[in-house]
Amino acid sequence: MATLRLDPDRLLPPDAAVRPIARRLYEAVRDRPIISPHGHVDPAMLRDDAPFTDPAALFIQPDHYVTRILHAHGVPLDRLGVGEGPLPERRAREVWRTFCAHWPAFRGTPVQYWLASELHDSFGVTERPGTGDPDALYDHIAQRLAEDAYRPRALLRRFGIRFLATTDDPADDLAAHAALAADPRVDARIVPTFRPDRYLEPARPGWPDAVRRLGAAAGTDTGHYAGYVAALEERRRYFAAHGAVSADHGHADAAAEPMTPAEAARVYAAALAGEATAAEATALRRHMVLEMARMSCDDGLVMTVHPGVYRNHHPATHRAFGPDTGHDIPVAAEFTRALRPLLERYGTHPGLHLVLFTVDPAVYAREIAPLAGFYPSVYAGAPWWFLDNPAAIRAFQAAVTEIAGFGRLSGFIDDTRAFCSIPARHDMARRLDAGFLAGLVAEHRLDEDEALDTIEGLVSDQPAKVFKL
Amino acid sequence: MATLRLDPDRLLPPDAAVRPIARRLYEAVRDRPIISPHGHVDPAMLRDDAPFTDPAALFIQPDHYVTRILHAHGVPLDRLGVGEGPLPERRAREVWRTFCAHWPAFRGTPVQYWLASELHDSFGVTERPGTGDPDALYDHIAQRLAEDAYRPRALLRRFGIRFLATTDDPADDLAAHAALAADPRVDARIVPTFRPDRYLEPARPGWPDAVRRLGAAAGTDTGHYAGYVAALEERRRYFAAHGAVSADHGHADAAAEPMTPAEAARVYAAALAGEATAAEATALRRHMVLEMARMSCDDGLVMTVHPGVYRNHHPATHRAFGPDTGHDIPVAAEFTRALRPLLERYGTHPGLHLVLFTVDPAVYAREIAPLAGFYPSVYAGAPWWFLDNPAAIRAFQAAVTEIAGFGRLSGFIDDTRAFCSIPARHDMARRLDAGFLAGLVAEHRLDEDEALDTIEGLVSDQPAKVFKL
Amino acid sequence: MATLRLDPDRLLPPDAAVRPIARRLYEAVRDRPIISPHGHVDPAMLRDDAPFTDPAALFIQPDHYVTRILHAHGVPLDRLGVGEGPLPERRAREVWRTFCAHWPAFRGTPVQYWLASELHDSFGVTERPGTGDPDALYDHIAQRLAEDAYRPRALLRRFGIRFLATTDDPADDLAAHAALAADPRVDARIVPTFRPDRYLEPARPGWPDAVRRLGAAAGTDTGHYAGYVAALEERRRYFAAHGAVSADHGHADAAAEPMTPAEAARVYAAALAGEATAAEATALRRHMVLEMARMSCDDGLVMTVHPGVYRNHHPATHRAFGPDTGHDIPVAAEFTRALRPLLERYGTHPGLHLVLFTVDPAVYAREIAPLAGFYPSVYAGAPWWFLDNPAAIRAFQAAVTEIAGFGRLSGFIDDTRAFCSIPARHDMARRLDAGFLAGLVAEHRLDEDEALDTIEGLVSDQPAKVFKL
Repeated sequence: MATLRLDPDRLLPPDAAVRPIARRLYEAVRDRPIISPHGHVDPAMLRDDAPFTDPAALFIQPDHYVTRILHAHGVPLDRLGVGEGPLPERRAREVWRTFCAHWPAFRGTPVQYWLASELHDSFGVTERPGTGDPDALYDHIAQRLAEDAYRPRALLRRFGIRFLATTDDPADDLAAHAALAADPRVDARIVPTFRPDRYLEPARPGWPDAVRRLGAAAGTDTGHYAGYVAALEERRRYFAAHGAVSADHGHADAAAEPMTPAEAARVYAAALAGEATAAEATALRRHMVLEMARMSCDDGLVMTVHPGVYRNHHPATHRAFGPDTGHDIPVAAEFTRALRPLLERYGTHPGLHLVLFTVDPAVYAREIAPLAGFYPSVYAGAPWWFLDNPAAIRAFQAAVTEIAGFGRLSGFIDDTRAFCSIPARHDMARRLDAGFLAGLVAEHRLDEDEALDTIEGLVSDQPAKVFKL
Repeated sequence: MATLRLDPDRLLPPDAAVRPIARRLYEAVRDRPIISPHGHVDPAMLRDDAPFTDPAALFIQPDHYVTRILHAHGVPLDRLGVGEGPLPERRAREVWRTFCAHWPAFRGTPVQYWLASELHDSFGVTERPGTGDPDALYDHIAQRLAEDAYRPRALLRRFGIRFLATTDDPADDLAAHAALAADPRVDARIVPTFRPDRYLEPARPGWPDAVRRLGAAAGTDTGHYAGYVAALEERRRYFAAHGAVSADHGHADAAAEPMTPAEAARVYAAALAGEATAAEATALRRHMVLEMARMSCDDGLVMTVHPGVYRNHHPATHRAFGPDTGHDIPVAAEFTRALRPLLERYGTHPGLHLVLFTVDPAVYAREIAPLAGFYPSVYAGAPWWFLDNPAAIRAFQAAVTEIAGFGRLSGFIDDTRAFCSIPARHDMARRLDAGFLAGLVAEHRLDEDEALDTIEGLVSDQPAKVFKL
Repeated sequence: MATLRLDPDRLLPPDAAVRPIARRLYEAVRDRPIISPHGHVDPAMLRDDAPFTDPAALFIQPDHYVTRILHAHGVPLDRLGVGEGPLPERRAREVWRTFCAHWPAFRGTPVQYWLASELHDSFGVTERPGTGDPDALYDHIAQRLAEDAYRPRALLRRFGIRFLATTDDPADDLAAHAALAADPRVDARIVPTFRPDRYLEPARPGWPDAVRRLGAAAGTDTGHYAGYVAALEERRRYFAAHGAVSADHGHADAAAEPMTPAEAARVYAAALAGEATAAEATALRRHMVLEMARMSCDDGLVMTVHPGVYRNHHPATHRAFGPDTGHDIPVAAEFTRALRPLLERYGTHPGLHLVLFTVDPAVYAREIAPLAGFYPSVYAGAPWWFLDNPAAIRAFQAAVTEIAGFGRLSGFIDDTRAFCSIPARHDMARRLDAGFLAGLVAEHRLDEDEALDTIEGLVSDQPAKVFKL
């Protein structure tokens, strides 16, 4: 049985000329409260505060970062309970054993790094999974989960999360958020995020029904274009009133292109009737992204954009297990041309904050940093999803800050649905910031007091400024 | 005259906190047998086992890695004997002198690194080329080449090559391979690789003749589409029966798109008659790539794919010296959309292993690693050709393993026609693996026992598993 | 008040195993004369040798590297005097104060690095801007500027600039250059560069007038195509006679495609009449780029090409402040296909030197290095503009030299209009070369004598060879 160790210097540069500086910088921010302005935690979990059922349901089943690697190693997703609720104990234990047996498959990935941190720091695990009895490990974690100290709200407090944004459907009544906001026992600010993708893409199956539901939620008639726009404006207001600070957009591309109101109305009617062409549907979506930017200028919701992902690449898996099951695959991204009409109109508007995320690292130096280095509205979003890992983050830090400076970064966002991974993810980001800044100090490009001021800004001030907290 | 030195720590990270770990990891795999699942060595050379004629014929004339750099420095290819057989001694010496005089042109390239290793380790050269008398150096090597210990099979043994795949024409009778397999004095397993490109691209000059030859080799009538498909299936069977483990594909793009059988038959007939349009020829090729994947599911040949190269960029050089003369130039690659139809059909088929190579490093993190991190059939091919160099390999290691883990890598392939460079290339890969893993240990992301297990897997188990040895 | 420090080891690798080697390499080239074969210094400034008016006019107003970052931080360009001449002292001081207050916005950027070097080394500033009294700092610099030792020619001498190329309009009479060449007090060679973009792009507003002016300057009738071509040839001769060594091209793409002379003449006439289509205008431009290459083979002007920038991305800023005001944004670049027709014709012509610059780092390894590693005419241009920063330069060094070797690099070019930044920029490049080469020595890939020879070549011989000085 091998020991699971978490070295206090983990992820800091090994070079003896750099590591001591990195340690000092990291120490300065290690215990700061967590600000999480974008993620996928379920607010009902925090409202209900029910105990987590078992280790498989907590760490494996719902986390496509974990299940995709197991799938790549030949484990069918149904053996992992993907898409199912809590499993009977027998099956949950099987999932856990499979996971432990595949622990080496995660070597070198941040997923293993985060899981090791969670197991060690939050659950007191001291054995490396896969090297002892997986059932004993299961029992150890399951016992913890039965304690009050491991219920969601207790963990939220222990994790030091001060601000947490979830991701929500525009037609959602936000009841869970209302309950959390009204509960004096909840110290953290937990807010929704307006995620309108499905309502902006007429080509998606079920879009006419979706916009009808939207109209019902907004109390407007979405049978015509003006009512549709009004419904979106109304739901944004509703979200803002419930604490939302941002609207999140993940379309196939970043394009924002205007249509005339008449043309938009015509295509909208055609789409409702199921008669819009594919090109018209795309044109309307791009027009609506521009409309979203206009609304952001007015209502102040920060606009986050993350294009360039081929969703549900494997149809059989999508049919069997639904979306977000590990086979969304990036494609080349483009921002410079795609965003020009939007930035022409709103790029210097004081109401707009536009945060650009990508899973195509080629655009960081080529497009995102130059845009963020000119437009006061544009911020370079932290490396995200497939790029939320040490090498990609280091490449991002170097590429973007040399072109745009630190003041144009979004600050870290964890983008996770794995609640227990939040502290490990933010801690990783702080360590990498410390290491990067220590390198600049060791190369005499910054004085240490400047590096210290910078890392404090990155962890606390910058996300508060960018996301208008 | 400067000394040619090979430091035992070469390519290992200089950082004192990392190098000792890297040394230990490297030591563990330094002397392991070489597995070379993809390359371009001529099997007849090993069958005939004739002495190499001279240093120019061995190191320079046939190796476009070497001649392209000399060409870039103004040396015409005819002065280097490119495309010619063994040269008269006078000319061979001239080629050698030219090469020695340009030794500094190779500084910083892996070509110099490999050549230095070959000269020093295999030929006992201790002077840096270009700093002493090139004729004396020529004589030194020529004397070695006349010895039995320097004939191909003796080198094969000395190099520790256990498995060697060549690259072969589907119409080849594989006589050289049969002879080698039948010879009890040959310990290494030397197998052919099925490389059908020319038979799958109706747009190539001479394609109708090529498919006729293919039909003759297969004993089927390729005058119609069904016979053409049958001929390919038959030749794959023949290759597999002669030990082949893989089929290799290097088209302009990675696309695989189905046609109906009727449409395929129609376009095939038109192409044979010289009447297919360019678009039809491309469509048929993409359809046939999908067919190749289907056949791989059935016959188990590993499918390797390496698109994205503009072949024979300089027509005058192509006319004078033929293909593979140093002016194949990469273009942007795309896998996510291109491979979707193939992966929809066969991505989870247990018979398919699909190894993706690229010379566009932008796709490693963006497409290859995410695909290999979900599909059990997909492996990330080692950096290859222009990218088979330390910086590109390090970038690959970081980008791909953080997304897909070590278990989704192909293991190293040398892809070389320079027989004597094989040990140096594999040794370089082992040093870089050791250095990369040592970095993870020094950053406390892996324990050293995990790093050791990982490097042993990368060198031995992983290629055996991926290529089904 | 914090101290502004310039550590003698700045930018050298911190690793104790590498830094001493880097120091020795850097020392060997630190004081070598500066060769600046591409930049944007105004020759009239050197001809007139008038004192610089004030710190804002010298460091801020004309430098879009500086003003774009301030703009991104919410400072309107009119508050910075962009596009204005020298400001009244009250406004110049305001600009300076704004700049000092935003000093932290430049942390981590090379702009801050260069400015710190200039302030410290050239102006004796020892306080970090923004931490003391900005007006006292303004006074300190203004006093220096009033001294003879700070006039342009004195600085030119002090900076050790031996060769300086400016960038000039083909219709320019080059009077400033003639005056400088005739002045025996000017030791440096100051030459023009032929920059014909505006004359080669029929789609630009005002193109018919431009070619008329060109004809007037050349003494030919540009009312027809043959006269237009003759005018360009004549103006190139004129530039060469005034010392020009290169012609510089910055179109939207790198494409060079032939038209027949008849077709070119037809489209030229249509364009003059304002009747060419957008596609025709693009085709004529691409044809003319090919013509430029043909002329370079004849007259020997080095051809530099830097495509892939979306110019004047923010129309409102362009209207108010003109071009080159910080919102030129890169897009994806492509060279392999775009340059094929040009390289087919002239790629091995002894008269052609073609230097490829990019702001899309993805093409360095993929296209530029492979092209430069085969064609004797092609050189990989140093990282430029957004990429002229330490991380991008290090990535370039590794990616390009491993594929093409050091002998295929252009050597450093500063590309700047900020005269006082020239020594800091070249010094940065030398430090980064020293660091990169020291890394190769520490990894035992080069011996130190080879590294020394290489860095001396990069700083002095290589630019002289590439730019035919």
